Amino acid sequence: MVSIGIIGLGTVGGGVAEILERRKDRIRDRVGAELILRKACDLREELSETSGVSPGSFTTDYREVLEDDSITLVAVLTGNADFAFECIKECFKRGKHVVTANKALLASRWREIFTLSRESGCLIYFEASVGSGIPVIQGINEGLAANTIDRVKGILNGTSNYILTRMSIDSSTLSEAEALAVKEGFAEVDSSADISGLDAAHKLCVLANVIFPRPVELDEVYREGIDSIEAIDIEIARDMFSFSVKPLAVLRRHGDKVEARVHPALLPEDDMLAGVSRENNGILVEGDAVKGVMFYGKGAGRYPAASAVVSDIIYLAQKINYGVAGRIPYIHTDTGAGTPVLDMNELSFQYYLRFMTVDEPGVLSEISGILGESGVSILSCFQRGRGEEGVPIIMLTHKAREGALREALSRIDALEAVKKKSVFIRVESDREIE
Amino acid sequence: MVSIGIIGLGTVGGGVAEILERRKDRIRDRVGAELILRKACDLREELSETSGVSPGSFTTDYREVLEDDSITLVAVLTGNADFAFECIKECFKRGKHVVTANKALLASRWREIFTLSRESGCLIYFEASVGSGIPVIQGINEGLAANTIDRVKGILNGTSNYILTRMSIDSSTLSEAEALAVKEGFAEVDSSADISGLDAAHKLCVLANVIFPRPVELDEVYREGIDSIEAIDIEIARDMFSFSVKPLAVLRRHGDKVEARVHPALLPEDDMLAGVSRENNGILVEGDAVKGVMFYGKGAGRYPAASAVVSDIIYLAQKINYGVAGRIPYIHTDTGAGTPVLDMNELSFQYYLRFMTVDEPGVLSEISGILGESGVSILSCFQRGRGEEGVPIIMLTHKAREGALREALSRIDALEAVKKKSVFIRVESDREIE
Repeated sequence: MVSIGIIGLGTVGGGVAEILERRKDRIRDRVGAELILRKACDLREELSETSGVSPGSFTTDYREVLEDDSITLVAVLTGNADFAFECIKECFKRGKHVVTANKALLASRWREIFTLSRESGCLIYFEASVGSGIPVIQGINEGLAANTIDRVKGILNGTSNYILTRMSIDSSTLSEAEALAVKEGFAEVDSSADISGLDAAHKLCVLANVIFPRPVELDEVYREGIDSIEAIDIEIARDMFSFSVKPLAVLRRHGDKVEARVHPALLPEDDMLAGVSRENNGILVEGDAVKGVMFYGKGAGRYPAASAVVSDIIYLAQKINYGVAGRIPYIHTDTGAGTPVLDMNELSFQYYLRFMTVDEPGVLSEISGILGESGVSILSCFQRGRGEEGVPIIMLTHKAREGALREALSRIDALEAVKKKSVFIRVESDREIE
Repeated sequence: MVSIGIIGLGTVGGGVAEILERRKDRIRDRVGAELILRKACDLREELSETSGVSPGSFTTDYREVLEDDSITLVAVLTGNADFAFECIKECFKRGKHVVTANKALLASRWREIFTLSRESGCLIYFEASVGSGIPVIQGINEGLAANTIDRVKGILNGTSNYILTRMSIDSSTLSEAEALAVKEGFAEVDSSADISGLDAAHKLCVLANVIFPRPVELDEVYREGIDSIEAIDIEIARDMFSFSVKPLAVLRRHGDKVEARVHPALLPEDDMLAGVSRENNGILVEGDAVKGVMFYGKGAGRYPAASAVVSDIIYLAQKINYGVAGRIPYIHTDTGAGTPVLDMNELSFQYYLRFMTVDEPGVLSEISGILGESGVSILSCFQRGRGEEGVPIIMLTHKAREGALREALSRIDALEAVKKKSVFIRVESDREIE
């Protein structure tokens, strides 16, 4: 018999309790022993019933979970990162293994957590923290263990992918699309962490730290939200250049350094990630032997996330039952220096640019002159009919260094003929678009 | 230190030996000990050099691998299923764990192998047997362990996918596309097992047996090759109905029974599998909690397959090093009755139909009359300009029982006005095409 506890019976935790009960027999077969949910805790008493936890197992006091010596495994499923950290620390101290889905916690306190894990001999599994139910952590860590992972390119945030997909289909504004996402259950009322790219940056950090023993720090990940994108850019990029706009997270090895960035990007239509739409996630992982492998599925929701948590629980409980849990370390993390992240200004991309200008002769020449002086070469350029906000000038550039482009844009934005901050979106493609 | 052996240094085995040498340091870190390739065997002496195996470790006598007591893990990478089986039996008898990529062996002798594995306490890993380097076996078995898997829908054979993709792009014939596949290294000179669907059926069987404790027998899997498909069908299906033709393998749970079938199928363009082209594989797995998860990547090639084998080796060697290998069973297989497969004639599909007829009045009425009598209802129908082989009549049906359709087609094929055996391709879609 393996006794477990749950701290947090919200969306994910409630789903976990449900599946544990509904799939009892199947789980017993896999674990090799009865799996008992001994104690489940949440401050909201009404969640006991909705998640089917019996009154005898339910508590509002998390210490009852931590202090129960029969419990050898705790699913820490609270959204509060600081509280989750305290729980995990206490679990390790008391010899309890942990499963969590809290990416904010993992991204910000990776070293501490894995140092404590190693010292205590207790394991922590966290499959649900990236890609929800998609088994990408295990896939990278074990299934692709033979590979040096050179790149990860992923759509890691379902909410922002849903919003950009909606904007593309309906030509709706970001806030209209956001409202719809809330209504359909693909966004929380406060989706600022999704829109700003923070959630994706957390997940990219987790992936980076599974791949690199020397961790990547969260605040070194370049981050740009999808709120710079307007429906007009999605439409032009699609109709003129056959691009899809996607909320992208990229990690790429450059010798001892990495590129780590989260921002909206334009993908050519034949890129598999361009086909990942709505609330779905897609994660392309490139290893030196395997080349590209993509993992795809729903990036959010009660049951997909609970699927990953319960799979982790089964997997750990099986090890506990057979007396081998903690014998093999799960993640290798060095305590020394981290992996340095390259300066975004040193990277090069092709760019989609949109300038809103006054309708006067000479403006195009002025803009292209400044780009030229900064060494940004234009691949194609066209002007659209005048709109309310001025005359849009659209450009696609050849590959240019980001620092050079930014310098040029700040000069262009200062021109009197330019009426709005110019828009730029990076093209993410291995081959130069011509 | 963990000592291993390799039997078979062909495409995959040679790649494995190479990666073991090239990634020595990384592998040592993961295993927690030095991994030594003690003995590698192949009858072709020249393969010693191409795979970088030192003369001291190379042998042409496989018994040297099996009889070396220091070897605790053997990668059995010969293509000969009977010989592979003898090797595995001997490994288990001598307490050696096994990694293999041989799907023909696994599909045909699953029960025997896993009975011997359980009795001996030795493990067998086989990630490379399906989807090459894509970690789909582990994904299903461990990453999705919380789920009841209800369906698997996959493009499991890279060669036939490459051929159909080429036929679609170039309007080439099957044999032209096949020749190109051989030239580009995506097909062997004898690709009959790929074309006929046998290879995909092997892989579907392996997936089925990972999912269902009661095994599915290979000869119960319905199997139809891609050689019934002509370029004209690919073109019409695409241009008229926006379908992609894909070599599909489907497994679906129906209570205690399953649907298990391999055949070319038409996919709507927005199906993620429709975007899986060329030599790639894509495997959609549907679980009750996680909904659909797709695994995608190269389905063939030396290094992708070697990636999966070496990952298995690392994973097993780690367990051997920490003294826990064999403590937890990997696959659960019952020795009793198998899982029965539903009769194909009882399943229902929408169908694309093509009849080649003589140019006479009344033919269309005769054909549609027979279909109607069998209860096959026509959704749309059109006639193309006359070709060399007659006048093509194309139809898309509503959902119909396969048995009823086959009965109608055999009557239609017997008509004097019908010049060739009629073509039918199943539409694979969850929603009825209208």
